[in-house]
Amino acid sequence: MQSFSYWIGIAGITAFAVTAVLVLAPKGIDLFSAVVLGIITAVGGGTIRDLILDVPVFWASDLNYLWVAIGASLVTFFAESLFTRREIYQLMLYIDGLGAALFAIQTVDKAWAMDFGRPLAPIILGIVTAIGGGLLRDVLSGRQTLLMTRELYATPVLIGCTLYVALLTWAPEHQAAGALCCVAIIFALRAAAIRWDLTVPHWLITKAKAD
Amino acid sequence: MQSFSYWIGIAGITAFAVTAVLVLAPKGIDLFSAVVLGIITAVGGGTIRDLILDVPVFWASDLNYLWVAIGASLVTFFAESLFTRREIYQLMLYIDGLGAALFAIQTVDKAWAMDFGRPLAPIILGIVTAIGGGLLRDVLSGRQTLLMTRELYATPVLIGCTLYVALLTWAPEHQAAGALCCVAIIFALRAAAIRWDLTVPHWLITKAKAD
Amino acid sequence: MQSFSYWIGIAGITAFAVTAVLVLAPKGIDLFSAVVLGIITAVGGGTIRDLILDVPVFWASDLNYLWVAIGASLVTFFAESLFTRREIYQLMLYIDGLGAALFAIQTVDKAWAMDFGRPLAPIILGIVTAIGGGLLRDVLSGRQTLLMTRELYATPVLIGCTLYVALLTWAPEHQAAGALCCVAIIFALRAAAIRWDLTVPHWLITKAKAD
Repeated sequence: MQSFSYWIGIAGITAFAVTAVLVLAPKGIDLFSAVVLGIITAVGGGTIRDLILDVPVFWASDLNYLWVAIGASLVTFFAESLFTRREIYQLMLYIDGLGAALFAIQTVDKAWAMDFGRPLAPIILGIVTAIGGGLLRDVLSGRQTLLMTRELYATPVLIGCTLYVALLTWAPEHQAAGALCCVAIIFALRAAAIRWDLTVPHWLITKAKAD
Repeated sequence: MQSFSYWIGIAGITAFAVTAVLVLAPKGIDLFSAVVLGIITAVGGGTIRDLILDVPVFWASDLNYLWVAIGASLVTFFAESLFTRREIYQLMLYIDGLGAALFAIQTVDKAWAMDFGRPLAPIILGIVTAIGGGLLRDVLSGRQTLLMTRELYATPVLIGCTLYVALLTWAPEHQAAGALCCVAIIFALRAAAIRWDLTVPHWLITKAKAD
Repeated sequence: MQSFSYWIGIAGITAFAVTAVLVLAPKGIDLFSAVVLGIITAVGGGTIRDLILDVPVFWASDLNYLWVAIGASLVTFFAESLFTRREIYQLMLYIDGLGAALFAIQTVDKAWAMDFGRPLAPIILGIVTAIGGGLLRDVLSGRQTLLMTRELYATPVLIGCTLYVALLTWAPEHQAAGALCCVAIIFALRAAAIRWDLTVPHWLITKAKAD
């Protein structure tokens, strides 16, 4: 499965970089900044994770992640009109969701194997990995971060990571199948949110007040 | 004293999480984001400190910090109307100040014991630990950070940490009593700022110009 | 050359802190925040680099960097009217560019010697070191980051670091002379951008759309 999850990871990195450039293009961004923000979005979450776990950053030992992020950012920059076609943009959102799901579960695995703050800390790190890159992108580009919108992005990751930790705790013999299931659950929830524009229900949001 | 300072630390984490959710609630925030930002605010400063010191992050070896941050965020989210009652909000601000004071002095202690860049670097790290979580919260939620307001929050920490470093340098035999004194000094200054709405005096602020 | 590059590094730290305070002064900033943001701007990029390389942060073993950043911030705060005189401000911009050039090439050297993700990762780290402090400053003070402006700041760094990596790969016997050349190239490009107000050409910028 290693090789299969590796290629999904590469596809996820691609989607992170592509969606970053697409999201920023309407603000009028130059080529260099597009590539820098594409890279940061693609590898930022995993970098924060590796710093906290105190392990070497994942993109230094395998440069493919950086090359793919750079390539995807460049192609998106020059072919922006292609990517904004609705079907392709939607496709990228789904791959982005799949990448986030995979990175989150991989992170839980990694932290669990290191016996890092079980059972809670692996879940936290899974969420950090999935949303960290997007948060850095939004902060550096002056956009509202997804924490302040009602988008259902991180909640599916929370659910999937929690289920996976439950499985690792009580049924570790099913780890491989369970990992696939949890990736599938996160992706299914995220895909549903994309497909039907689902948002956080009103009763789970504090009432905004005029400042 | 270990056990006493541990419980003050837990109280400080609680106050950090509670004030984070209270500060963000008027912007209209969902449950999940409230918990994520509560956690980041509560443990963010100490995490940056541990990364810079290159020691394991403090919340991985003792999950109580995370559980308390999650619990406090949840309770605050659902009982927001209670917490915004003026007396309780004020109480939380005082505990937040006590937590910041304690974390700052603990950090100076930790960095000093590691002989990390004495005498200046421990003071810098003390300030980073006290204000880092709040800075992350404000940046991620699109608020103006406290560095751009006139609030007297970090200056008491600077004064207390500097005094404590002076004591460690010239009178290390009084470390335990000195630590208590410096926590008390930071807290007293911060409490005075809360109580009488003290701000940075005008002559210590550059004149703002129209952009 | 060690000693020469050390002093250029100190001059660069000075310029980073001075330009930080000058850039923030018109927003109305207090003394303490000016010093904190001066320090963060001056040492922020190198700190992120050291965390990613997993080496001790450079300012802990040599406190001169911090003292210089503090001193420069204080002087700038109180003598702001002097520094905003056009000639001095321009001079600071040039020294800031020289500092960025030097730190970037030093970083490539450091990462290359550690065999850290050659050949691509050293270039990425060079850029991170050169612009990281400024990005932190802008994010913490609510300014638009340079990634969203058309300023030619990071592109010269990219060009110089790439040339230097090419040289380290194919002509490592000329490392010392090559390092000087690449610093000179970065500085010359940046100086030209300052002198003639050069910006990123229009065809390399996506069309901004109304939100």
